[in-house]
Amino acid sequence: MSAMLSVAGATGATWVACARTEAERRLAEKTDPLLVGPPLHQAPFAIRHVNTDPISYEQYYSVIANPLLWFVQHYLWPLTYEPVVDQRIHDAWRQGYVAVNQQMAAAVIGVAHNSPRPPLVLTQDYQLYLAPRMIRDALPHATLQQFIHIPWPTPQYWTVLPRTMRDAIIDGLLANDVVGFQTNRDVRNFLMSCDELLGLRVDHRGGAVLHRGRVVWVRAYPVSVDVGALTLLAAGSGVATEDARLASWKPEKLIVRVDRTDPTKNIIRGFLAYERMLTNHPELMRRVQFWAFLQPSRQDVPAYREYLQRVRSTAVRINSELQQPGWQPIRLELRENLKRAVAAYKAFDVLLVNPIYDGMNLVAKEGMLLNTMDGVLVLSENAGAYEQLGKFALRVNPFDVDATADALYCGLTMPAEERKAKGEEIKRQIQSEDILQWLRRQLEDIHDFAPSRGGRQLGS
Amino acid sequence: MSAMLSVAGATGATWVACARTEAERRLAEKTDPLLVGPPLHQAPFAIRHVNTDPISYEQYYSVIANPLLWFVQHYLWPLTYEPVVDQRIHDAWRQGYVAVNQQMAAAVIGVAHNSPRPPLVLTQDYQLYLAPRMIRDALPHATLQQFIHIPWPTPQYWTVLPRTMRDAIIDGLLANDVVGFQTNRDVRNFLMSCDELLGLRVDHRGGAVLHRGRVVWVRAYPVSVDVGALTLLAAGSGVATEDARLASWKPEKLIVRVDRTDPTKNIIRGFLAYERMLTNHPELMRRVQFWAFLQPSRQDVPAYREYLQRVRSTAVRINSELQQPGWQPIRLELRENLKRAVAAYKAFDVLLVNPIYDGMNLVAKEGMLLNTMDGVLVLSENAGAYEQLGKFALRVNPFDVDATADALYCGLTMPAEERKAKGEEIKRQIQSEDILQWLRRQLEDIHDFAPSRGGRQLGS
Repeated sequence: MSAMLSVAGATGATWVACARTEAERRLAEKTDPLLVGPPLHQAPFAIRHVNTDPISYEQYYSVIANPLLWFVQHYLWPLTYEPVVDQRIHDAWRQGYVAVNQQMAAAVIGVAHNSPRPPLVLTQDYQLYLAPRMIRDALPHATLQQFIHIPWPTPQYWTVLPRTMRDAIIDGLLANDVVGFQTNRDVRNFLMSCDELLGLRVDHRGGAVLHRGRVVWVRAYPVSVDVGALTLLAAGSGVATEDARLASWKPEKLIVRVDRTDPTKNIIRGFLAYERMLTNHPELMRRVQFWAFLQPSRQDVPAYREYLQRVRSTAVRINSELQQPGWQPIRLELRENLKRAVAAYKAFDVLLVNPIYDGMNLVAKEGMLLNTMDGVLVLSENAGAYEQLGKFALRVNPFDVDATADALYCGLTMPAEERKAKGEEIKRQIQSEDILQWLRRQLEDIHDFAPSRGGRQLGS
Repeated sequence: MSAMLSVAGATGATWVACARTEAERRLAEKTDPLLVGPPLHQAPFAIRHVNTDPISYEQYYSVIANPLLWFVQHYLWPLTYEPVVDQRIHDAWRQGYVAVNQQMAAAVIGVAHNSPRPPLVLTQDYQLYLAPRMIRDALPHATLQQFIHIPWPTPQYWTVLPRTMRDAIIDGLLANDVVGFQTNRDVRNFLMSCDELLGLRVDHRGGAVLHRGRVVWVRAYPVSVDVGALTLLAAGSGVATEDARLASWKPEKLIVRVDRTDPTKNIIRGFLAYERMLTNHPELMRRVQFWAFLQPSRQDVPAYREYLQRVRSTAVRINSELQQPGWQPIRLELRENLKRAVAAYKAFDVLLVNPIYDGMNLVAKEGMLLNTMDGVLVLSENAGAYEQLGKFALRVNPFDVDATADALYCGLTMPAEERKAKGEEIKRQIQSEDILQWLRRQLEDIHDFAPSRGGRQLGS
């Protein structure tokens, strides 16, 4: 979301989005798009809100996109019992996911018709898999590109969805000229899906698929953070207030995690690993604290409500078992506050990023960019960020709480020089590939590959 | 198991196996292997039982092999909460899985030393991933081959296991000269695992891996049934008794499933689909019955006990909601009785085989081979058998209960000619590739590929 704000600001494009608030719904009824003032150093851009039927939107968002697609793409379904694909899911697909994609496509087509330039449509993520095909049908010569922010699993796991759904998803994506993913593994899994599920002709080395007589290019563009904006924010007075607040309770050693309360984030095993570390190294009791700064997420989805409850009860159990007068092992804070998160980033000794699977994980990048303590990154081998940052992080298997306990301890006790060296390497990496670089690489590829922009063809 | 009995009988080999019963444990203490009389038309063979420490065996079998490996290889873990890889799992790996593999390897090495012929060791399945490396270390010039009966998932999902475990598993497998899997998808996933997890040089087209200076060949050999033995059994007097028993209650239309109560088998969604079909087509009530003939499985593993309970409670709920005087929709029978299963195979109108994921699924082959009613196969697209039989079965997505309901109805109402034609195609396919063919293809490849048998090298 914040990545896209930066991009819209940098390009002067029109951003088409579902209206979510009452104010946005009123704006959606106007003819002119909303002009948004420049965030920081960037250009103004327009937002076109789309009104959707509330029941359709609920089916689209809270049944199909989350959890159905999200859980498929992160291997999260407990397949023995769930999902049960029944009438409710089939209805939500047709009346929700297909319908909202149609409305969004119609709005994009409307904007494109009013545009003086040949249309270039950048579609974001898994909520809009079907829109590109609808846009392509209306605007055969448009240039279409889509970026998927979350992992793309193996074709074998896509069979958790009925054939009609998964085929429509892939067909929709292949209406683009270029499809972008976070990592090379996602690219490979997508190409395999085209091959195995749809029987398409695929060039695995060249990263291309032949479909309906068109060549579609598939590329990895690891997403990043807005280095300038974050650096300015961290130096601002709002964060200074949070720094002071943190200083009033900060322990000798601070472990931090900042996450939405999403099952992918693996918060419970993180607590269990920390508990294990404390029992392995009782000398750390009273000296260390684990600050879990969590944003409640998707609480309209039952699996997310249950997850948050279990996150909370695990923290409560560990605190009640290990706490001592004046010392609580885990500080669990549930709220959304970017400035407080930035204060946490600046202050950690160890940042725990141990997702089960994760498209990229920007907490790892934001945290390491802003940290001032030569803090250490403990990073899951299943985060997309691992491809770029893993070499200078402490690698953990997210399911292995014993190994994660060891990594936390290793991070807390690492010699100062080594911490500093590793942290600087990671910072350099993040600074060299910020969000505008991510956008630039995509625009360059669109220029190179899209036929309507004179792009090259397969084999050239 | 029955497949391997046929194989041992056909080759005159020595079968090395863990002792499971008291009688086997006594036999294991003797020096001479047990000579087993020929089953049906085959040659006698020897069994060498191995005594294992009961605690090691429990860790090996009920912690690591089932559920840890089994659930990984079938994508069954509810990853949000399980597995938690902790001290208990690490201990079970070292003291259970590694230890029992060592004992089995030692027994094989002992048999090989006493053999007049150059040793050829055929290792079966996921319980013995580590033994081939141990055998290779002791017998560098032996010919080793291993067949994996269950699916091999994507490398991404193998990361549910810590690196030490998954690396040891792949390294163990690569001590063989040839590694066999059920399907081409399993072969591809294994080759990708060698590439992605261990960084090995892989020839994806040729199906070969270079590891520790040796070439290892990877091939698909879809396992099958003993056509002759099954046909004789089905014609025998024991089955005739079961036929008569079935005739006493047989409804007008009979849907059958025969399965172990394993979560992979997808028994609950099968019941839900049947319930849906009855509510969609109430004219079928009283005329059709669903006979679920289930063998309780792995009841020492908690997840399996819970599964059986939920299978049972789903059947009870559906029966209590839909039953009518003199008619129960589901006949749930929990016992192991091969002759009764064969009677069920002979009599079904529709055979439901809807596993979540399944290496091959021999029920589909046994059932279609023996059926006498021109019965229809409803087959999951995620069963290994789908590659061979899918063209003549009714394909279902195992998660889609609505589509499964439609397939059951379609099977029950299919015109007689079409049922007959499809059934005969499937029978022909099974008869042309029986279990000895499966063995023969493996032995031919061993002859062609194993260097110690003058096999060819990469590129030749």
